[in-house]
Parts: sequence; C-alpha cells; structure tokens
Amino acid sequence: MSGGKSYLNGGKEGAAVQHYARFNDFTLITPTASMSAAVHGGRAKCLQRLVRLGLPVPRTVALSYDVVHRIAEGHMPDLPRLLSAFGREPLLSVRPSSMDAEWGGPGAVLNVGMCDARRDALAGTIGEEAATALYLRFVQAYAVDVLRLDPDAFAVPDASASSLAAALQTFEEETDEPFPQEAGVQLAEVLRSMARSWESTSVRLLRQARGAPADAGLGLVVQTMALGLGPGESGSGVVRGMDPATGEHTMNGRYLRQSIFRDALTGTGGPEGALYLAADQRGASLESEAPGIFAELTEFSRICRKRLREEMEIEFSVAGGTLHVLDAVRMQRSSRAAVKAVVDLAEDGIIPREEAILRIEPRALSQLLHRQVDPDARREVILKGIAASPGAATGRLVFSAMAAQTAASQGDACILLRRETTPEDIRGMHVASAIVTERGGMSSHAAVIARGLGLPCIVGAVGSRIDTRERTVTLKDGRVFREGDMVTVDGSAGVALEGAAPLLEPMLDGPFTTLLGWADKVRDIGIRANADTPDDARTAETFLAEGIGLCRTEHMFFEDARLTLMREMIFTDDSKDRAASLERLLPMQRRDFADLFHIMAGRPVCIRLFDLPLHEFLPRDREDQRALADALDLPLSDVVRRVQNMSEFNPMLGMRGVRLGITVPEIYEMQARAIFEATVQASRETGSPVVPEIMIPLVSARREVELVKTRVDAVAAAVKNESGETFEYRLGVMVETPRAALRAGEISDHAAFLSFGTNDLTQMTYGLSRDDAGRFMGAYVAEGVFPEDPFHTLDLDGVGELLLLGAERARENRPDITVSLCGEHGGDPDTIAFCRAAGFDYVSCSPFRVPVARLAAAHLALGGTPHGTPWEREDAANAAGAGAAIRRL
Amino acid sequence: MSGGKSYLNGGKEGAAVQHYARFNDFTLITPTASMSAAVHGGRAKCLQRLVRLGLPVPRTVALSYDVVHRIAEGHMPDLPRLLSAFGREPLLSVRPSSMDAEWGGPGAVLNVGMCDARRDALAGTIGEEAATALYLRFVQAYAVDVLRLDPDAFAVPDASASSLAAALQTFEEETDEPFPQEAGVQLAEVLRSMARSWESTSVRLLRQARGAPADAGLGLVVQTMALGLGPGESGSGVVRGMDPATGEHTMNGRYLRQSIFRDALTGTGGPEGALYLAADQRGASLESEAPGIFAELTEFSRICRKRLREEMEIEFSVAGGTLHVLDAVRMQRSSRAAVKAVVDLAEDGIIPREEAILRIEPRALSQLLHRQVDPDARREVILKGIAASPGAATGRLVFSAMAAQTAASQGDACILLRRETTPEDIRGMHVASAIVTERGGMSSHAAVIARGLGLPCIVGAVGSRIDTRERTVTLKDGRVFREGDMVTVDGSAGVALEGAAPLLEPMLDGPFTTLLGWADKVRDIGIRANADTPDDARTAETFLAEGIGLCRTEHMFFEDARLTLMREMIFTDDSKDRAASLERLLPMQRRDFADLFHIMAGRPVCIRLFDLPLHEFLPRDREDQRALADALDLPLSDVVRRVQNMSEFNPMLGMRGVRLGITVPEIYEMQARAIFEATVQASRETGSPVVPEIMIPLVSARREVELVKTRVDAVAAAVKNESGETFEYRLGVMVETPRAALRAGEISDHAAFLSFGTNDLTQMTYGLSRDDAGRFMGAYVAEGVFPEDPFHTLDLDGVGELLLLGAERARENRPDITVSLCGEHGGDPDTIAFCRAAGFDYVSCSPFRVPVARLAAAHLALGGTPHGTPWEREDAANAAGAGAAIRRL
Repeated sequence: MSGGKSYLNGGKEGAAVQHYARFNDFTLITPTASMSAAVHGGRAKCLQRLVRLGLPVPRTVALSYDVVHRIAEGHMPDLPRLLSAFGREPLLSVRPSSMDAEWGGPGAVLNVGMCDARRDALAGTIGEEAATALYLRFVQAYAVDVLRLDPDAFAVPDASASSLAAALQTFEEETDEPFPQEAGVQLAEVLRSMARSWESTSVRLLRQARGAPADAGLGLVVQTMALGLGPGESGSGVVRGMDPATGEHTMNGRYLRQSIFRDALTGTGGPEGALYLAADQRGASLESEAPGIFAELTEFSRICRKRLREEMEIEFSVAGGTLHVLDAVRMQRSSRAAVKAVVDLAEDGIIPREEAILRIEPRALSQLLHRQVDPDARREVILKGIAASPGAATGRLVFSAMAAQTAASQGDACILLRRETTPEDIRGMHVASAIVTERGGMSSHAAVIARGLGLPCIVGAVGSRIDTRERTVTLKDGRVFREGDMVTVDGSAGVALEGAAPLLEPMLDGPFTTLLGWADKVRDIGIRANADTPDDARTAETFLAEGIGLCRTEHMFFEDARLTLMREMIFTDDSKDRAASLERLLPMQRRDFADLFHIMAGRPVCIRLFDLPLHEFLPRDREDQRALADALDLPLSDVVRRVQNMSEFNPMLGMRGVRLGITVPEIYEMQARAIFEATVQASRETGSPVVPEIMIPLVSARREVELVKTRVDAVAAAVKNESGETFEYRLGVMVETPRAALRAGEISDHAAFLSFGTNDLTQMTYGLSRDDAGRFMGAYVAEGVFPEDPFHTLDLDGVGELLLLGAERARENRPDITVSLCGEHGGDPDTIAFCRAAGFDYVSCSPFRVPVARLAAAHLALGGTPHGTPWEREDAANAAGAGAAIRRL
Repeated sequence: MSGGKSYLNGGKEGAAVQHYARFNDFTLITPTASMSAAVHGGRAKCLQRLVRLGLPVPRTVALSYDVVHRIAEGHMPDLPRLLSAFGREPLLSVRPSSMDAEWGGPGAVLNVGMCDARRDALAGTIGEEAATALYLRFVQAYAVDVLRLDPDAFAVPDASASSLAAALQTFEEETDEPFPQEAGVQLAEVLRSMARSWESTSVRLLRQARGAPADAGLGLVVQTMALGLGPGESGSGVVRGMDPATGEHTMNGRYLRQSIFRDALTGTGGPEGALYLAADQRGASLESEAPGIFAELTEFSRICRKRLREEMEIEFSVAGGTLHVLDAVRMQRSSRAAVKAVVDLAEDGIIPREEAILRIEPRALSQLLHRQVDPDARREVILKGIAASPGAATGRLVFSAMAAQTAASQGDACILLRRETTPEDIRGMHVASAIVTERGGMSSHAAVIARGLGLPCIVGAVGSRIDTRERTVTLKDGRVFREGDMVTVDGSAGVALEGAAPLLEPMLDGPFTTLLGWADKVRDIGIRANADTPDDARTAETFLAEGIGLCRTEHMFFEDARLTLMREMIFTDDSKDRAASLERLLPMQRRDFADLFHIMAGRPVCIRLFDLPLHEFLPRDREDQRALADALDLPLSDVVRRVQNMSEFNPMLGMRGVRLGITVPEIYEMQARAIFEATVQASRETGSPVVPEIMIPLVSARREVELVKTRVDAVAAAVKNESGETFEYRLGVMVETPRAALRAGEISDHAAFLSFGTNDLTQMTYGLSRDDAGRFMGAYVAEGVFPEDPFHTLDLDGVGELLLLGAERARENRPDITVSLCGEHGGDPDTIAFCRAAGFDYVSCSPFRVPVARLAAAHLALGGTPHGTPWEREDAANAAGAGAAIRRL
C-alpha cells in the first residue's frame, strides 16, 4: 500500500504531479467528445457510439493509452477531477479498452467506491443483505485482484455481516492498514494495478503472440455502476438479436433479477436462475414478465444492428424498472451464424455485399463443411497427433485395410489406424470413416488422400503405444484399446477420443451458397478441384469448382480386377504382352474418364498420366506374394526376385512419372487411348465437345515432353481415324522438379499448360520427404528453424521463387500458356494471393477446400487480404469511425 | 565400267570436260607450291613439309577437296596432264588426305599403272616372280576394292603366272571387258571409287559421329611407287624415334626386305619375317645389316621430331640401296608415352611448356593412375555394367563384406560383388580389390566410395544372373561362377572377366610429375581433394592437392568399436545418456582429425559434419539385431521396433545432415569438440597454426546455419578456455538443396564459405535418386532424353544455373565468401571450366581425379578448352601452318 495515497497528499511524487497538465487526463464520453479507438481503445469508442444513438448509457469517463501508460510508470492523473465527474458518492466500474479485445488485458473491477458509509446508505435502498454482499464482494476483489493478496485468506462462508467483518479484519492484518474508505484511494490502486498488469512481461508476450504490436496500449473506461439491485423490477443481463449457433434472428440472452454486471451468465444464481429473453417456451422469460423492458431491448438491439452494422451483444441493467445500457460488444458466433449474419446484413441493405464477403475469414468456412465434435462433449483423449484433415467421425477401430473393408461390408463405420498408409490401403481408406497413422506429416500419403476424400485424419499420432501387429493401442495408464473398440476422431483438433462422442452436422445452407455466389462474381482467379474419382468429382461439382485441375489416375488401378491386371502387366517381359494386359485395362479406364467428363459437363478435366512407381502395385508380405505367384503360375522365387529388383532406395526420386512413361510407353499409350475414346463417347452422348487436358508428371527435361507428345499425338490421330470424329485436347506439364521450373522456357515448347505440383516441388526444393518430415517438423517449426511447415504453408521464398521463375520463363516463350498450381497448397489463401499476384490462371485444391479458395480469391479481388478487411483497415486509419471499435471490443 | 574411259574419248560427258579448267585440278608437291591442310588435307600438307625438309619423297601430286568432290559428282579432272607429271610409265599409289585422320576414309590403292606390258618390263628388273605377284596384287585390289567385285571370285591359290591369268580371265568374265591396260583408265576408276566412298551415307555418318563437320572434304595424294623390290638392299618399313608404350627414345619399327608399303607390319611375312630397326638384341636388325640406311633413317627421325615438333612415324622404302620417305604420321602412343613425349619436346626446347601442357588431354591422365588390363590379353566377359571407377584388379569373388574381410585376413585379394552397397559394407569395401554391384548408377554408394578409394568398380552389372544369396553368378551359357572363383574387374571398360587377366601397372613417373608441376604454375583455380581417411589424405598429398575440400565424417563411425558406441547412442532416450556415449567416441574422432591435420601439414582441411541418417547404423537382418539386443541388454522386440521406427521412405530426403544436427545436437557438439581439440593438438605439435573448416550438410534455411553456428561457437569458446590456446576456424555451408542455392544470400550471413555438393544437388534438382537412376539412365541417355548422365556430367542448364545463382547471391551479400564445388563432378574438365568462368575459388574431387583436374585447370588458364589446344585452333585458322597437318594425319 506504500504510496497508495500519493496522489492526494503529494509527498515524493509531488514533482510528477506538475506534469499532469501535459496529458489529456480523461474524457467524459458525450456525443461530441473527441474520441478515437486509436487513442482510447475500442470499448470507449463503442460506448460513445451507443451514447450518440441515444441509448441510456450511465455516465462514463475514458482514460487514454497515454494516461494509462503514465499510471503504470507511477504518474497518477488528477483523480479528484475525475471523481468529480461522478458526483459526491460515486460507485464505479473500471473496464479495459484496448485496440483489440482479442489481445487480452485485465478483468473489470466493479463497485469501486464501496465503503462502510456507502454500505450503510445502500442498505436503505437495496436492503441490508444486498448492501453487505456488495461491500464484501468489493473487499474481496480489491484484496485479491487489485492488491494480489492471498485469495484463501479472503474466502468466507457466506455473505453475512460477520463474513464482511472478518474480511475487513483480514485486510487490515495483511496490509497493516485499514480498508481504504476514500473512493480516490481505491480508484488509484485499481488504475495502477490494471495499468501495471498490462505492462507485465507475461501479459505482453501473450498479446504479441496474438498479433498485438509491441507498443499496443491499454485504455480504461470508468463508469457509474447502474445496479440491478433494489425495489421494483431490478436486475441485469445480456441480449443479442441472433442465435449465436444457428444465426436465427431471435431475441436471445439471459436476465437475472437482483444481480449486477454479467451475473446472469456467470454469477451465483445464473444462468440457472436467470430468465430467458424471448417467450419461446424454453422457460420463464423477460418478454412475458416485463414486456415493456423487453420491447425496449428489442428496439435497442434493432438500432445497434442497423447503425453499428453488426450483430451486437448488449449488456444492460434494470434499476427499479429503468433500463441502462452498460456496454455492447460484437457478438461471438459460430461460423455458420457468422455467414448468415453477414448475408442477412447485406440482404437487409445494411452493408454492401462486398463487405459481407470481406467480413468472413475464408479459413472459417472449412468448419462448415465437416462434422464437428460437439464442443460441449466430454473428451477423453487416447491419441494426439497432427490435425491432417478436418472433421469428426465415430466408428470401430480397425488396424488394416482388409478389416476396414470387412467392417464396411457389414455396414459398420470404422476408424482405420495404420503405421502409415500406402496405395495398397486405398480401398480400405475409401470405406473408412476416418484415418489415423502413427507416422507421417501434413503431406503424407494418408493426409493427402484423407483430405481428398474429405475424411477426418490424424497423422504422426503419439501419446500411446500403437501395435499394428497385435492390433492394440495401449494408453500410458495401461488401458488397452483393441480392434472393434468404439472411438471418435476429431481431425480438426488432431485427437482421437474414447467412445462415440456426440457430433454436430455440417451446414451448407442457403447463406453459405449465397455468400460464395457473391464471391464468385468478384474473384478474378480460377478455382478448380483435385478429383480422382467420380465421387470426388461430384463433391467438386457441389462446391462449384470450375473444373478438375488434377485427376490422379493411379488410384484407379487398385481395384481388385485392375490390380490383378496391373500385376500381370508388371510381370510381362516384352512390349507385346504388356500391351495385351493393358488392352484389358483400357475399357475400365475409358469408363473412368467418361464418367468424369459426364459429371463435369463440359468443364475442363485435367488428367495426370500415371505417376506411381510400379513396385507400389506389388505385394509386400510373403503370403500375398505367394498368392500372386499362384495366380500368375510363376515360382514364388520369381515373384520375390521381381519385387526385390523393383524396390527402390528413394521411391520419390525413382522410376515414376514420365520416366516410367518413357521406359514403359505402353502405359501412357493405353491411358491416352482411354482418354480420347472417352472424349469421343462423352462428346457424342452429351452433344457438346469435351476438350480433355492431359498432364505429364515429374518432368525434368524438354525432351521428355517431346517424346510423350509424339506418342500421345499418334494415339489421338488413331482414335480420330477409327472413330471418324474430331476433337481437341491440350497436353501440358506438371512442374514438380526444380529443374522443370528452371527450364520452363524450353519445356513450354511442347506444353499448352504448366501446372505447379507444389507438394513434390517442395520436397525437392528442400530435399525433404513429406513422408519422413513428420519426425522432426514439429520441433523445427517450434524452434523457428522453418517459420511454418512448408508442406502446409507454401514456402514463398524458395519454392515461390521457382514458381515465379517458371511462370515467367514459360510465358516469355509462349505468352498464351496456361499457368496454374495444383498442389495441396492450392486451397490456402496465402498461396492463392501469391498465385494471383503472379498472374496464374487458376489454382486447384481438394474439393473440400474449394469454398475456402473461392472466398479467399474474392477477398483478394476486393483488395482485402485474407487476414484483414477494408473496413477494419479504413477504421484503423480513421479512428473516428465506429467499425474498429465495434469489432475489437 | 560404263563411262570408264570418258575422260579420254569425250562422248556424252564432253560438256563436263569444258569445265575442268575452272578447277585447280591438282598440285605437284614442291617446297614452294601453294598448299594447305584446309584445301588438300593433312597428309598432303605433311608431305610438303617433308619435301621442304629435304627428305627424299617420291614425286607426289595432291588433289584438293573440291576436285575430289567434283569427281564424286562425275566430273573427272584432266588426268592426262596429271599422269604426265609422273613420266611415261607411271606406277602410282593413291592415298586419302582428309583434315583429320580419325575421321576414316578409303584405304590406299597401290600399284596403279600395272598392266601386261609393265609386268613384263618389271620382270627384267625385279624378277618374274615379283613382277607377276605385284600385277596379281593390283588386279585383285582393283577388282575387289575399286570395282567392288566378289572377293571370292579373285581368290587364287598362289602368286604364280597361271593364278594371274586366271584372275585376268575372271575379271573379263565379271565385267565383260578385258582388264584395263591404260594407267589413265585405272586411275580414273580409282579416284572415282575413293571419292564416292567418301560421300556414301554410312561413311559420312561414321565420320560425323567422330566429330567431322557435315561438309568435311576428302583430298587425295597420288605418289610414284618407290618399290622395295629388286636387286641390292631393297625393302620397306616404318620407323619411330620413341617406344610407343614407354616413351623411351629408341629407334623403333620394322623393316621387311623385298616388300612394299606397310608389308613389314601387316603383309605376308611381316612382322615375323621383318627386321627390327635398332640392334637391341631382340633379333636381326637393320642397324646391323644396313648401318648406312639405319643412320640415314635416324637422322630423318631426328629432323622430323625437331622440325615437325612431334614424335612421328615415318614410312620408307629402300630400292637398291636408295632410301625413299613415302609418308609420315603422328606416332600413336600410350598415355604414358604421350606425357613423356611432350615433356621431352619441351625440355629439349622444341616446344614451349605451355604447348606441352595443352597437347595432353586431361582425361587421358587417368589411365596413368590405375592398373589396366593388358590390351593384348584374351577377354572372356562374364559381367557388363557401368564403368564407375577406373583401373583393373584381379581376385577371388566374394558376395559379402564379411567374406571380403575374411579373404583379406588370409592375404587373398578379393572382388566384392553385392546387389548394392550400404555404409555397413564399408569395411569390406576397404579391403576389397574391386567392387561390382548389380544395381546403382554412376553416383551410387558403391561408385562414389570406390572412386574415393581408387578401386575399380562396375555398377548396374547385367548380362548374367547374380544371386547374392546363393553366392553365384550364372552366365547365359549356363556356366556358374561361385564364391572363391578368380575373376578380373576392368573398371575402365565396365566389364568383369573370367580368371586372372594380365595387368599393366600404373606409371606415375618423372614426366608425369614434371608436366603437372608446369600445369600448377599456370592454372588459376584451386584444386582440392575429397578425402575421408588418412589413406585418402595421403593419396591427396601424393597428387599435390591444395587441401581437403570435403572430409566426410560418417565412415569413421563404421569401425567395430565405434559402431557399437554409435548404436548405443542411438538407443539412448535422453540427451545426457547420448552425450555419454558420444563422450567415448570423442577421443577417436579427435585422433582422426589430428591425423588429417598432420598429413595435410597446414593445408586447409574442410570437415563436413555428420550427414547420414542414424538408421544406417542399425543392423538390418534379424541375426544382427539379436546380437545387438544382447549387447545392449534389451529385448529383441525393442531393437526391432527401433529399427522399424527409424526406417524412412526416402532416406535421401529424410532425417539427416543438419536436420539431425539440430534435432540431436550432441553429435555436432562432439564433432566440433573433436575438431577443435585436434586443432589445438596439431597446432602445438607442428608449431604452425591449423585453421579447420567446418561444413554443415543439407542446409535449406538460414536459421539452420545460425543454430549450428551458435553451438559450434560455444564449443570453440569452451575448448579455447580449457586449453588456454587460441585458434581460428571457418564455418561454412554445403549447398546441396535447390533451396540453399536460391537462398544463398541470407544463408551466407553466417557462412565463411559455400561449397556446392553437386551430387545431392543434382538429385534434388532432377528429383532423381542416384541410387535408383541406374535402372533407366542408360536408356535415357541412349534415347537422348538427357544428353548425358547428369551424375556424370554436370547439368549446366539446370543445376548449373543454381550454382550461378547461389554464388552470385552469396557474393552480393558477402563479397569475401569462398565459393567452391565438392561433388563428384569436381574432377571433370567441363565442370572445372564452368566453375572457373563463374569465379569459384576451388573445386574438390576424388584424390585420383586431382591430376586430371590440375591439368584441365591449366588448359583453361592457357585459354585452351579441355577438348582442344591453341595450336590446333591456330592451325585450323591458318591452314598454311604445319601443326594441324601433322597431328591430323
């Protein structure tokens, strides 16, 4: 308490007093006072807006950032003058008012000014009991929150007079001074405590982590308490004009009689004892019990929405039937409600559509596309890993693709848990409800496939011992989960939970579609989807992708009948036998492509030719090898030898993509034929011409493209000749090696388009396998070695430069070339911004990321960045505007 | 024969006759005639030099390229005038004279002018028998070589008069004309035949493949035959002033009495019946039998060497005691003799040292450094593959590193044959005499290590079935080679031979050292060696490397005691235990480095920190895993699990290099300490300060360098403190990822040097594993998809651009930074040219490539390119000079 009274009695701080005049010590909030969020903070600014709108706000004074900073340094403003604004016996609340409420800050302190005399006076109006309780509450808050005394010492059994006496006694023992009776002394301590708390290292680091600048200031607002205590209709509560979960426009909130501040939500007796606002059958309501006050609140809510152009949450109190508005903040809401809120605001003419678009953070949309674990559900975490694909699912644990298929055939939902997944697991993955792997990172096979399928996925799962052979997961506490046990995967949070947790369904309702429709009208970069199967293509269709930017064809070969033919083909020794095996795969491939062309109905479909190493199609365990030997009528040793001979040290850098296409040309020839025959067929059936795009993977030299082009052209000529139909097609290159980017100039000689495959390009630019990076990427990002996981966030400096170089060189050589990006990064708003700035024609991403990409692209076209909105920036520049204040409360 | 007489009797080609005057039909070779190699070819030009030197050259006429080309088109020159140069009854040889003898061309035709009358006349001077034989020989040559009649029809049992009559009869039957009796008719056919042969498609393609331009011309020389037949000392032969194998200056060659042309070397009776030139005890000699002629030849040889400034082979004939010089060509020689020849020429003041340097093709030196299979030995090839490391060795076949060690312990040379090699095989490789692998390419583990060790090596061996489990090699003909069978590996040719083939020893004699000493004086780019062990370092020393540019430290950990400690370290679970294991490795590492510092005696040593993935140190087969479990007192399942957990999909792109250095910092800390303690120790012991260079592998981001630097700096400070000594050191970065090259600017903030590791950089730029590329690289290069194997020849377009970008960005940020290249490509002359042009400070290569690199660098400094020499280019520009003619005969 030393110096606690210094502002009153001068003393050693007298010198500082001389400087007070240099500061604009405080500002009484009136409609005409000069205020700005940049000086006084968002809460102060918003309160002025409420005052201007004529809402009954109790008398409020704002302290600027400068003043509060000086307080922290020991220079107290002219408190007697401040207190004089509140009359002779002030009873005050003090609340923080920073630029952005997200940055944290000290909690509110209520009832400043309570003292023995004031308690006695209040006892006459609100009753002995309430007055005593109020005083006790202040003594406790002052001791614990302001002076940081031991909370246990101030724990009392009840709110009786004897408890109050005990607390006052404790206070004196702990501080060697009696509880201060002057409002000025109390207020000085409160202000000093709040100001210093803001400057403490831990609080500063916390807000900087949340994006605050190093010099972010704290403003404070001091307001007359409008107590919801006493005779007549008295109480306090909060009201919103919209359901925060669904976005329905209903009067929403809670009201608790004989309470103050937010007791209706958080205090003793609330929310259980609180009334609902509207009479909607959920329980007792303010609407039915005090219809006049309800009507007034409804009108206030309407005014706020219209004039503050936002859905607000209003804090109010009722004192003997009189309504006071204490505060208003931007209403917290679910992503679904957020979309509905801005669409409704725009449709009601309150904000323009562009602003509606910009108010929704694109990444927030992904929440809407997937099921979620109910946030209120109990969570017993059994595995923790990298949140590799969002959404939630419940099912029975299985440890193999085969078990997944068995479960699926019995109609059981299952969760597939593997050490890692390989293309052999594809069929199991297709039928699983979620995927969990022990190894791998954001771009491992499991993660990429799961995102493509829209399945929840966790990779790099740790925390428990997984034994895929014994088919058990053993927790640290010794509990064991076995195949068949029910679990829930929360792919958004990266955790697996015990049992079947309650889930919330995705919500692709009208406002969602409306908003994306508006976004499509303004954006100026194309958005396609990566889609390998008809199912994927239908999802892409649903999300209005403009075409398929990447159709990987290798998964098509893992179906039973095809796998057998593929293996047969691999075991042939000459070109003729190979062609014969492939001949039998041809009709299946043709059907695949015809289906895609039908679903996409004239929109472009870009088909990547076969990319996988052939050894991925051979069985790895001895039993399967034996079965294959039987099927092919070969000695087992031949099969084993072939598998061994074909294995690679670094399959990622091996015999795959165009290397395979050139070395075993029959595969690409079969695929080209299937594409062209499907083109003829789909064009005939739909009556509108299909123009397929064919993409060559893993190119590193111009001549590779030339060789493939010659062969594909020959196949096209043959199909045209046989069918008597003509058709167009486009041949292009997937740029996945640094060399292809560097040599894009000459490579584009034979390419109508270039599409950057940033997954592989990132791997090769860093010399880092996405499948193996999981083991240290966490630590690397945590230590700041890499600012982000480059498989998750495009590395603009390194990989990005290759993109720019490649695009520039290709265009210099061939100005009409189409340039795009089709890696996993394609759905990321920052990547879209980069590609748009570089003049790319389109990006292509997982179907489930298409909505995010469409919205992000619209933000860019509107000149906003994915992380900010024009109105925010405008407000920041012109602090007299209301928006910033509203949003940042 | 149609038109065979056209030049004589006009007829339908009369019109063409009118044009003859337009051509400089032919030139009689005199000292003052206007001639040049660019017009008449190298042989003609050289003959003029001999004439000028006063050597007794028979009368010779040269036909220019233009004239010969016109002949091929059907326009015969004025043959009567030509023939008139040779007197009334000419007997002539016609020989080709192109720009470069390497380009091939028609064979010589001798004895043109022989006919019935001439035979009769000759019978009087050289005898019936010889005259008949000479005529028969011409009839056969004319029929078969000129008119392309069936050789079988002209096969006769002997050289008798009846055989001649039969041949003449056959000729008339085959051609419907009698054998032409006019020299003009004969000559016309000979010229036409030779001219047309030059223009044929197959011959043109062949010479273009050897580097001839599309419009390369053929000149011809027509010379009076100086027959080595008849009474008195008569015969013919060749003479050289130097032993073509050893370069010793002895009169060398063969002489056959009563013979013509090169019969002493190739004809009936030669060389068995031929005399040696000098009386050196090998057999009968010209020196002892005709000392006057020998003396004359010795003088001619001396004149040629001095005035033609080259070691020549002179073709001569002796007719009744009179010597004629028919021709002289640049002497074919071994690499060893070539080096001695130019060094001797320079030391004798005949050519300047610079020219001596430029006359040796750098790549030719590598022949001198290794043993070779005797080119005359019988070769029974059992395996064929990529010639991955030059040299030859003989030994017993072994199929495992263990067997190699067993053989070595018994003093047996062995050839290690493996499917592929891994770091576990290192000890076996060190004791093997040669290495053969079934898989891999030029830059596979086996190839890189073998080149480093200077061992012959073949990779990607095919042609026979290798079964490393059964320990057999089965040939296509069913023969089986087993462990213990004797074989020979020719790593220069890429073949393994049956049995122990005779080998030639390497020759690092005085001239070799002298030439490289001269080279060092002129070159202006540094040459260091890659050396991992003291043995390597001593080899580097021998070849006068200026320092060690790359010392890989991981091989040091495969020795028994160390391997155990490494494995122990891998199985520790916390940093403290890890440090304890490493503590015990420290003294061994310190000794490694101290040894290197001692051997390199003050020259820089650049030590790359640990780069290998740790799983390379774990055993792969179950038995070894069991042994390890016993040694570590762990359950086998723990060992198996650890091995599984640590395995990687793409080890090349995994947890290695600086990633390991950051994640398990104790390893780099131990190595830094070992380096610094060895520095202190070696500096104390030698009295001169050692400045170690420490290189960080696999960097892709600036922060990685910063983190390692902080730790290494701390270790240095600690060692300085403990030892009380000060020392300097340099920390740098190995640029192996495309990203490190692109970000070299910021990465150089903390790096005193950058060294481009082009092996890995090539892998990542192409997205191509050197270990897996072998499977298709051959086909790729053959089809021209890649112009060269980029692991063998640096890809200047792609990887090269990254080198240029990286060097430029680093220097812009830090002008004093040292830039170098330390990949396998460092020894390649083209790569050195590239690095020198880019201003690199040095290149570093395998010790055995250092001599090649030193010479190549000298060529560059002299303005020559590795593929040409200034005197060649000067001569090409100034065709009147003699040099080109000499060298190109």
